[in-house]
Amino acid sequence: MNYLFYPNSVAVIGASPNPTKWGFRILNRLISSSPKAMVYPVNRNADYILGHKAYPNLLAIPGPIDLAVIVVPESSVPPVVQECVDKGVKAAIIITAGFKETGVEGARLESEVLSIARKGGLRLVGPNCNGHFNTAIDLFTTGPRRIRSGPLALISQSGNFGTYILERGIEKGTGFSKYVSSGNEADITIEDYLQYLAKDKETKVICAYIEGIKDGRRFFELARHITKKKPIVVMKVGRTAEAARAVLSHTGSLAGSDAVHDAVFRQCGVIRVDEVDELLDVVLALIRQPLPRGKRVGIVTTGGGFGVVAADACRRHGLEVPALREETIQILNKYLPPRWSHSNPVDMAGSYEGSYGCMGNLLKADYIDAVIAVGSLGVPSDFLDHSTATVGIDTQEYVGMMIEIELRFVDGLIERIDKYQKPLIITSPVGGVGGVKPPALVKLEENGIYSYQTPEEGSKVISYLVRYAEYLGLTK
Amino acid sequence: MNYLFYPNSVAVIGASPNPTKWGFRILNRLISSSPKAMVYPVNRNADYILGHKAYPNLLAIPGPIDLAVIVVPESSVPPVVQECVDKGVKAAIIITAGFKETGVEGARLESEVLSIARKGGLRLVGPNCNGHFNTAIDLFTTGPRRIRSGPLALISQSGNFGTYILERGIEKGTGFSKYVSSGNEADITIEDYLQYLAKDKETKVICAYIEGIKDGRRFFELARHITKKKPIVVMKVGRTAEAARAVLSHTGSLAGSDAVHDAVFRQCGVIRVDEVDELLDVVLALIRQPLPRGKRVGIVTTGGGFGVVAADACRRHGLEVPALREETIQILNKYLPPRWSHSNPVDMAGSYEGSYGCMGNLLKADYIDAVIAVGSLGVPSDFLDHSTATVGIDTQEYVGMMIEIELRFVDGLIERIDKYQKPLIITSPVGGVGGVKPPALVKLEENGIYSYQTPEEGSKVISYLVRYAEYLGLTK
Repeated sequence: MNYLFYPNSVAVIGASPNPTKWGFRILNRLISSSPKAMVYPVNRNADYILGHKAYPNLLAIPGPIDLAVIVVPESSVPPVVQECVDKGVKAAIIITAGFKETGVEGARLESEVLSIARKGGLRLVGPNCNGHFNTAIDLFTTGPRRIRSGPLALISQSGNFGTYILERGIEKGTGFSKYVSSGNEADITIEDYLQYLAKDKETKVICAYIEGIKDGRRFFELARHITKKKPIVVMKVGRTAEAARAVLSHTGSLAGSDAVHDAVFRQCGVIRVDEVDELLDVVLALIRQPLPRGKRVGIVTTGGGFGVVAADACRRHGLEVPALREETIQILNKYLPPRWSHSNPVDMAGSYEGSYGCMGNLLKADYIDAVIAVGSLGVPSDFLDHSTATVGIDTQEYVGMMIEIELRFVDGLIERIDKYQKPLIITSPVGGVGGVKPPALVKLEENGIYSYQTPEEGSKVISYLVRYAEYLGLTK
Repeated sequence: MNYLFYPNSVAVIGASPNPTKWGFRILNRLISSSPKAMVYPVNRNADYILGHKAYPNLLAIPGPIDLAVIVVPESSVPPVVQECVDKGVKAAIIITAGFKETGVEGARLESEVLSIARKGGLRLVGPNCNGHFNTAIDLFTTGPRRIRSGPLALISQSGNFGTYILERGIEKGTGFSKYVSSGNEADITIEDYLQYLAKDKETKVICAYIEGIKDGRRFFELARHITKKKPIVVMKVGRTAEAARAVLSHTGSLAGSDAVHDAVFRQCGVIRVDEVDELLDVVLALIRQPLPRGKRVGIVTTGGGFGVVAADACRRHGLEVPALREETIQILNKYLPPRWSHSNPVDMAGSYEGSYGCMGNLLKADYIDAVIAVGSLGVPSDFLDHSTATVGIDTQEYVGMMIEIELRFVDGLIERIDKYQKPLIITSPVGGVGGVKPPALVKLEENGIYSYQTPEEGSKVISYLVRYAEYLGLTK
């Protein structure tokens, strides 16, 4: 597996100068990310591709090759894999499709390839996949160019969907450690990747897009151990018969009974989500936030409407919104104007300066396990968008002042999250839209505390954290 | 109501030169949007505010005033409303909070204000609201500056949440006709706005954020008539006891039994959603797409993973994904490479050029009521992002070619949507992320066909359309 993620040399077999071909995209992606590894294009008909000397075949390359990326037509895959074995290549990624997912004939071809590899001690990724990356050494056979390094590893049985998850992850502000599109998993399976990533120091959270699991027992045993230390979040598809049919023609997996999967995931602490945004939202919280020790949520808002929506959403996701105790009301009276709601959700009645004291004291209250703030941090984007303001100076001064106040809050908030060991989920419906992110939210993000847009998202995240905490026996 | 949305003259009572005050924000917003109406600041202590001559009181303004916006402290509201009556003002928006939502004393103050207005023939918006706008005459007392005109009207009982819905609407690419934050609804209620907007030519779809309805019977009768011609989409909050408590302290409304609301909405054809994104997603489809005559969905994808996720999502939202009939398979064989899935979901196995024929023929099939395309239109953003490409020319030529192909599809697709009267929901998970929207999707949007990001969103939208079509008796 180390040869896959940390190769010293990579050959692209089927490299192409034609930009409509995968053989071009992969070589281009590899070269443009300037990996520490040497990159060798293999193509019978070209001397140079993308400025790199090309070789007619693998054996013509001087020196050893750790990793081969194979993008030749499916009928040429068996001889190319044999060539890899002859060259002593350690691992190969077979991008090419047309194997088990297409039926009996493809399955036969896949067995043939696997048998050649097994005999020669060559490990295989795919076939029918779109590549991998390791940000630690700038090695990319795929992946959007804006990817940066971060604590999240992703295994995806679908290349397209993997790319989509990566794109959304970038948009939400997270970085990735490693990615692999595992395809048909003829040789290396999701269980193998899990085992490897469990020990990977750059990875704090593992997520996976799963269509089918080959060795359920091994998955279960592995996951049960890993989730005690590293969270695993999966999007397992194929809930319905229609989807199961599509899985079969996609990666040739059997989707299996959905209820069984639900039960298995629950028993080994794997967090199962239904949608990509849920996956990333949960992951962002797992990176840095403490796990809650119960499901009682304190809600802080700048406006009543947000409080109503947040309370509804909390209940929809199985959380509680306890009434405030008298002592808390007394404390909040010190921070808030007389017209505040005096109840949970805490509607601060327009107060801006009070939000810090409010969030801090709710985190402190021993009958509250998590806090959601809605709109109470993050200067509204209409203010930030100076370019459209007609009356400049005064407004800008005011906005500057608000930003200053907020930035001063940030360190204290992080201190309280750590001190009370409770998650603080900041949602900012009107801050940061239109591409201008409020500076306080940026600063929090730099410290691993990500913010969300809606109270719905925030409460859903807390409900997942609560269930994980319950599994780990952290709740009271 | 016409004086509210089409005034010839507007006075801002409590206008302020201090940018931290609402009296500044509202005046600034009004002036900077250059409405056709005359704008008069009223402030005892200033001669000019934001370059406009200020008047010490309403009566000092020469000529009639159609609309007054009131932003004075709550205790000054009754005399100011009396002044409006004396001046012969037709409508007033009371931005000021501190009324019924704060308890008995505030409720008393609200009655006093209402009684003054009623006696003097003055209609009131609010109190406890954040303003309104009418894009037809560039009149804005609130609203993000990026708002453009469009077919959507929004009534919101929460000012904050209204602003948030507007922001999200802008992000999703829609325009608005009219907006009003109705606040406590002391005088004009949501029922009145509905009645007005039903006849408003610029409004094709009405949406509302509702915490409580005062006259349920009138709402029901109105909605029952309106929804036959104009869809009404509501986000009604206060599903739970906690939220109902928050509603009371927010706008002083009684949230009422949630089950009752569900039943009422269903019986009068109102589409009820749970979240803001759902609200806007449904609305975008209602603007231009035909309503489906059943719940059988054809799925077209460029990659198998997307098909699996789409099929799952369809079933989760109560839709059917019928198997393809032999005749359809024969037709699609003409457009797609041999390796396509030969089933629904249609995995085009990487074909790009085939997607047009595929979508068109699924729309045509008489056993399919709606089509979801996943990733089959919208050049992946990684391709569009030229700035990061290392090897420029060839890739750009290729991307240019793909864009040309797609753009040629657009007219034909719109033609087929109209011909077969079936919705085509285009979702583009990896197109358009990172701020670069594929040209074909932009062109579709210009024609009122909005695209979505995920198959989940797309199938949810179809399920709402199906239910509305069922209500209207359009389904078989």
